[in-house]
Amino acid sequence: MNNISMTLNADELILSALKEDISSEDVSTNAVMPDFRLGEVELLCKEDGVIAGLSVFQRVFELLDEKTEVTFFVKDGDTVAKGQKLGLVRGDIRVLLSGERTALNFLQRMSGIATYTRSIAVLFEGSKTKLLDTRKTTPNMRIFEKYAVKVGGGYNHRYNLSDGVLLKDNHIGAAGSVAKAVAMAKAYAPFVRKIEIEVENLEMFKEALEAGADIIMLDNMSVEDMREAVRLAAGRAEIECSGNVTRENVERLIDIGVDYISSGALTHSAPILDLSLKNLHTI
Amino acid sequence: MNNISMTLNADELILSALKEDISSEDVSTNAVMPDFRLGEVELLCKEDGVIAGLSVFQRVFELLDEKTEVTFFVKDGDTVAKGQKLGLVRGDIRVLLSGERTALNFLQRMSGIATYTRSIAVLFEGSKTKLLDTRKTTPNMRIFEKYAVKVGGGYNHRYNLSDGVLLKDNHIGAAGSVAKAVAMAKAYAPFVRKIEIEVENLEMFKEALEAGADIIMLDNMSVEDMREAVRLAAGRAEIECSGNVTRENVERLIDIGVDYISSGALTHSAPILDLSLKNLHTI
Amino acid sequence: MNNISMTLNADELILSALKEDISSEDVSTNAVMPDFRLGEVELLCKEDGVIAGLSVFQRVFELLDEKTEVTFFVKDGDTVAKGQKLGLVRGDIRVLLSGERTALNFLQRMSGIATYTRSIAVLFEGSKTKLLDTRKTTPNMRIFEKYAVKVGGGYNHRYNLSDGVLLKDNHIGAAGSVAKAVAMAKAYAPFVRKIEIEVENLEMFKEALEAGADIIMLDNMSVEDMREAVRLAAGRAEIECSGNVTRENVERLIDIGVDYISSGALTHSAPILDLSLKNLHTI
Amino acid sequence: MNNISMTLNADELILSALKEDISSEDVSTNAVMPDFRLGEVELLCKEDGVIAGLSVFQRVFELLDEKTEVTFFVKDGDTVAKGQKLGLVRGDIRVLLSGERTALNFLQRMSGIATYTRSIAVLFEGSKTKLLDTRKTTPNMRIFEKYAVKVGGGYNHRYNLSDGVLLKDNHIGAAGSVAKAVAMAKAYAPFVRKIEIEVENLEMFKEALEAGADIIMLDNMSVEDMREAVRLAAGRAEIECSGNVTRENVERLIDIGVDYISSGALTHSAPILDLSLKNLHTI
Amino acid sequence: MNNISMTLNADELILSALKEDISSEDVSTNAVMPDFRLGEVELLCKEDGVIAGLSVFQRVFELLDEKTEVTFFVKDGDTVAKGQKLGLVRGDIRVLLSGERTALNFLQRMSGIATYTRSIAVLFEGSKTKLLDTRKTTPNMRIFEKYAVKVGGGYNHRYNLSDGVLLKDNHIGAAGSVAKAVAMAKAYAPFVRKIEIEVENLEMFKEALEAGADIIMLDNMSVEDMREAVRLAAGRAEIECSGNVTRENVERLIDIGVDYISSGALTHSAPILDLSLKNLHTI
Amino acid sequence: MNNISMTLNADELILSALKEDISSEDVSTNAVMPDFRLGEVELLCKEDGVIAGLSVFQRVFELLDEKTEVTFFVKDGDTVAKGQKLGLVRGDIRVLLSGERTALNFLQRMSGIATYTRSIAVLFEGSKTKLLDTRKTTPNMRIFEKYAVKVGGGYNHRYNLSDGVLLKDNHIGAAGSVAKAVAMAKAYAPFVRKIEIEVENLEMFKEALEAGADIIMLDNMSVEDMREAVRLAAGRAEIECSGNVTRENVERLIDIGVDYISSGALTHSAPILDLSLKNLHTI
Repeated sequence: MNNISMTLNADELILSALKEDISSEDVSTNAVMPDFRLGEVELLCKEDGVIAGLSVFQRVFELLDEKTEVTFFVKDGDTVAKGQKLGLVRGDIRVLLSGERTALNFLQRMSGIATYTRSIAVLFEGSKTKLLDTRKTTPNMRIFEKYAVKVGGGYNHRYNLSDGVLLKDNHIGAAGSVAKAVAMAKAYAPFVRKIEIEVENLEMFKEALEAGADIIMLDNMSVEDMREAVRLAAGRAEIECSGNVTRENVERLIDIGVDYISSGALTHSAPILDLSLKNLHTI
Repeated sequence: MNNISMTLNADELILSALKEDISSEDVSTNAVMPDFRLGEVELLCKEDGVIAGLSVFQRVFELLDEKTEVTFFVKDGDTVAKGQKLGLVRGDIRVLLSGERTALNFLQRMSGIATYTRSIAVLFEGSKTKLLDTRKTTPNMRIFEKYAVKVGGGYNHRYNLSDGVLLKDNHIGAAGSVAKAVAMAKAYAPFVRKIEIEVENLEMFKEALEAGADIIMLDNMSVEDMREAVRLAAGRAEIECSGNVTRENVERLIDIGVDYISSGALTHSAPILDLSLKNLHTI
Repeated sequence: MNNISMTLNADELILSALKEDISSEDVSTNAVMPDFRLGEVELLCKEDGVIAGLSVFQRVFELLDEKTEVTFFVKDGDTVAKGQKLGLVRGDIRVLLSGERTALNFLQRMSGIATYTRSIAVLFEGSKTKLLDTRKTTPNMRIFEKYAVKVGGGYNHRYNLSDGVLLKDNHIGAAGSVAKAVAMAKAYAPFVRKIEIEVENLEMFKEALEAGADIIMLDNMSVEDMREAVRLAAGRAEIECSGNVTRENVERLIDIGVDYISSGALTHSAPILDLSLKNLHTI
Repeated sequence: MNNISMTLNADELILSALKEDISSEDVSTNAVMPDFRLGEVELLCKEDGVIAGLSVFQRVFELLDEKTEVTFFVKDGDTVAKGQKLGLVRGDIRVLLSGERTALNFLQRMSGIATYTRSIAVLFEGSKTKLLDTRKTTPNMRIFEKYAVKVGGGYNHRYNLSDGVLLKDNHIGAAGSVAKAVAMAKAYAPFVRKIEIEVENLEMFKEALEAGADIIMLDNMSVEDMREAVRLAAGRAEIECSGNVTRENVERLIDIGVDYISSGALTHSAPILDLSLKNLHTI
Repeated sequence: MNNISMTLNADELILSALKEDISSEDVSTNAVMPDFRLGEVELLCKEDGVIAGLSVFQRVFELLDEKTEVTFFVKDGDTVAKGQKLGLVRGDIRVLLSGERTALNFLQRMSGIATYTRSIAVLFEGSKTKLLDTRKTTPNMRIFEKYAVKVGGGYNHRYNLSDGVLLKDNHIGAAGSVAKAVAMAKAYAPFVRKIEIEVENLEMFKEALEAGADIIMLDNMSVEDMREAVRLAAGRAEIECSGNVTRENVERLIDIGVDYISSGALTHSAPILDLSLKNLHTI
Repeated sequence: MNNISMTLNADELILSALKEDISSEDVSTNAVMPDFRLGEVELLCKEDGVIAGLSVFQRVFELLDEKTEVTFFVKDGDTVAKGQKLGLVRGDIRVLLSGERTALNFLQRMSGIATYTRSIAVLFEGSKTKLLDTRKTTPNMRIFEKYAVKVGGGYNHRYNLSDGVLLKDNHIGAAGSVAKAVAMAKAYAPFVRKIEIEVENLEMFKEALEAGADIIMLDNMSVEDMREAVRLAAGRAEIECSGNVTRENVERLIDIGVDYISSGALTHSAPILDLSLKNLHTI
């Protein structure tokens, strides 16, 4: 994760997570360790997967004590195996203990998303279709989760409501028609944005294409209709297909030839990757 | 969720999540809806489960516009079924559209946890053993996730490092022995806290019991040793068993007769419950 | 200004501005007005121009006291004339006095930008070229200043570094070539973004066009070269021309037929529009 | 700018401005520069003027990355000329690119104010009259703008409503008379503050003088009346004249012999000073 | 306390105090009161004194729940007696219980300061000397404590380092002499501020008087020297005497005829006034 | 004070206190010391007592300028005597002057509490009874004040409403009976918490004991009844006695044999310990 985004956009969320876990003090640690002692602990992998979020893990300890030294034997995106030693954290033992849970909570979740994304993304290899995430992220975790999707081999859809235009049925209803919605968006939105619109049938699709939509999302359409849409588009617009992507149906969707398939499950339902800090010892 | 906790502890997290999704404006909505229009949308259930977080869902819309009216046909903890209409949101259509994703992100995640917790908790019915959560929560989501566990029928372990004492192997190592660790904790910690300690074998267990630990956590011990521990405790200390709780092994664990079984998966790996806002219309 | 953006993105900046002006109390007002007295004051125009920011002006008083009532006789974008009465503010006289300066500081600056933008924008009427703003805004004022540009008849370029891609000479240098920079941006950036690149001569322009850039910015090129670029583009890419736009040279630039002309002066050097609160009286 | 004020009062505004420009990441830079590369860029002057805000410019880069090294060849208050190289910024090229706009937005605006202030302040040389700023500053920019006025040779009026007493017509109306307003302010305000009052004619002026006002502001009075006021004051009170100060009329105002002339235009309508970062190269 | 200062300057401190006391929830109250019940509780005085901070007390409950109704039978500055019923709080019983301690912590401390200040201030009646507070306040409590001093009959010295000039021995040392220090302060500080300087003997006093100091603070001088200073001042400067003010020595100090006597004990060592909430009942 | 709590929980309160004292700049210091000068100042004790809060004192200067070096000749908990030199602060003289008051305000208050607590705690020596603090702390100062109590030899009661259960008369009323209140708390509260309940007579006491309360607080009971309660408890519950603890009556209370005696005065009414910074000089 880029240092600038870490400083400007992630640090305050990491600090907030630390305060969530330590609202006045770490009573257990302070009870038995009144004084500084230098120690080291190992980051161990307990499950096969893809690691993501190492710099966030490191930042948790640095925000507690900038003198903490973190060394990694892997880098984000690497495949990791059960039993593998992934890194070392060295510093004030109280910092290692007090930061452990928060650091792991970030790393386990981000790695879980990267692992799940990778398992889907490999199915896209060799095709022209790209796997996309959505805005169905955990509140206040988007910057971490969207990054983990990329590490896992997926691509990011818009970051939020401010940096992308996606006109859905309600927007179309408010505008009056597909054509009017596209026209209003082109007139209103900063010109650096592509205009995406969601359609439910071929008729709407054609109207969107005529109106000059940059991206058209096919919502709940039959495979045949989707194929026809791809044929009609002929490169004039990009096509996204959204919906319940499973390992089972993804190949069929890829075969249709859409440009993008988006999946909310990448961020909202990936289980964590099990990791732990072990073998703490003074040095 | 209690109004006071909502105001003091949840509001700023909800607001932060809204800003995460709207860093300058909702471009799509603003492009097609320049003016106020009163509308209503339905909250629909798309999957069987347990609902949790309705007041958080409601608060998302109220923080955007205090005039938004939210009506529910269910309450937290209710079993909900696919296709069921759960509630209505009425207000400025722009508010309904701009708040939709954030409101659902909270509600889906909380309900997912409640649903998964309930599926495990029912296995505990009729036993004296209680199902506990852990601190393995998503960063900045603890207050929502611990609440969802309760709604699902689980019990909360300590909230964070500041409000509970749990002495693990490293604390014991630092103190010198189980007995010394317990003694130091009793001397240091505010007296309203119970002292919990984690042990790995019967010898340590006996030492902890002698030292007057209030709660003893059995870590990775054999079923036989755990049975012996329960027998030895004889009510002098409460016993918690932690580890990989699955639907398969939980009955065997309950049968041992421990007081508590804790499971990180309740919060770190529950998939979401699928919900959506549908049928938006002006009124 | 949209209520949602006001609540999520503007309110804390307005509150911060109020605290900048009242770090402990308004000593003068508190000295002579210990008690509540209902009053009313008029918003007067002291200079011809375009008004922008009325809802921000109103919000300043509401954040001090939600009971304050503000009535306007004009709306954002209206032409206003010296001596014209634009609105009324009614409420606790202490609120009227303590909020006056901050409310006017916002409204005067936003209206100044709208006024200056309008004076340039009228020159674009009848042409296909659009007037754009830049990121040369006053720190912590961008949301207000970009809105004022729109009110004045200009269009917004990207909001910030996160929601638009604009590859400049240094990015091209880092990537190795125009073509590589465009390719890297397409691979990296969320697909909803258009890729814009800045070029300095026709050779670079052609390379950018081939590489599939969505928007090409012409930097410091001769009028002849710009005309040639427009001819070459032939609708395959949009063309932006940036630079010192003055009332004198803007017509010549429009005549070239570029799609966009951007001007930093709209936000960084527009003088304020003179406004005042007058005739305060108890009611 | 003093380090303590920078740390306590400016840092959070600078950080907020950076977040305004980078709400999730600098997409362009991250797309083409995935890794650290050491680079250097020059700060160039593109217009004659007075430089102000160098430490703020430097702080922008340090807040992004404390390892960034900034060297200046000029200091605040120096006259700078078009084409002059003013300094160097050395560090991670991504930091140089991502911080560029925000750093320049501060420095250009502050230097613009210093330049304009200097152009007026030179007209005061040789007189006993001092040039003052007002509270007509850009919201959330006061600490930077008031500093720039001093750099340009002006003097600061009160910082905000909390640290100075200035009784205007509405305060006088509320108190009942000039004499009562002065008396109430003396009774209420911390005794370390001088009491300033605004008067509109000689009668009010005399009443203020009798009441013991420390400073009397002449509002919209004729030159003859102002001369008479200066004569009557005879050193018993300081006299400030406020109003539309222009290069044309300022000499006439100085000639009257008032102690202070205040001008809102110093902060609300100064155009920026054009500066840029050029010649970025790896080192 | 003024509503504007409450909103802008006190609210976030009150909210922070509430969060200090409720970091996740009020466990006791939530355990036994799951649902809303309307109740009322009385504010009782348990000790004779002067009440101060009623609006802060009220605000604590309103910030928890804006529907809470608070009624008072006294107003700030009133003498209150042991056993006296001072007010009623009516609302959600959970709000009454959860807010009780924080509300009382503010009110007891503020009333304690008002009570102690009054006990000293009465000794000044009939004299021209005024009783002043200092900056020796409790961190993050200054706005409440300085207000309480005024309620008790004292006067406020400068609010903080930004709104008043007070040159002490170290400033004089840095400047080179008393005269130089005064001259530098006059040149640097906004002209609306009086210049105060601290002197240790008559020689310094005379130098300060010549230099045009507005206020001179006598530090640790003999009664005779202080009398001589008052005589020398002859109205040309105000004189403040600082030091250990006790009920015993204050009359002697007043007799000297200085303008101001300042006392840190008003804020740093006043005991609280004992108050409580009693007779909570449902209604 | 632990570094982690300092970073996570104290730093923002210290910074807030510094901003309270320096809302824009330290005018006096900046007027006479435009440039950096290295200096040193001594921390002197002006009154006998117990020192507490040295790391907070140090942190004030470090937050202003991380290069400031602070050396102490004593440690928290040491007895200090009038005239004793306690430490040195070395750094930019402007930092020493601007931070002085805030650093002393923290240290004087914390040391005052430690001093007063020690004076009471010595009376407990040789007994089994422990001296406890309460939640009657100064708003936003709890983390500092509870720490000072420990330094002085007292023990901490619960930190806040979230980390301890204490059922008072109103909770009992809401629950219906002592037994029901205890049962509801056991069912609701995280199991790591002990359940404390307040009783007013022996009957309630017996009910609480039967119900399995962990700690029972005796409120306003006669010495005879308290003795009887201790006898009845027989180790089944811990007993706390709360009330007006004075040097006079504390021995009688200890003699009863309760486990804990709590006193609000430790934090709400301890006078400060007088300390100062003296002999500032350049080096």
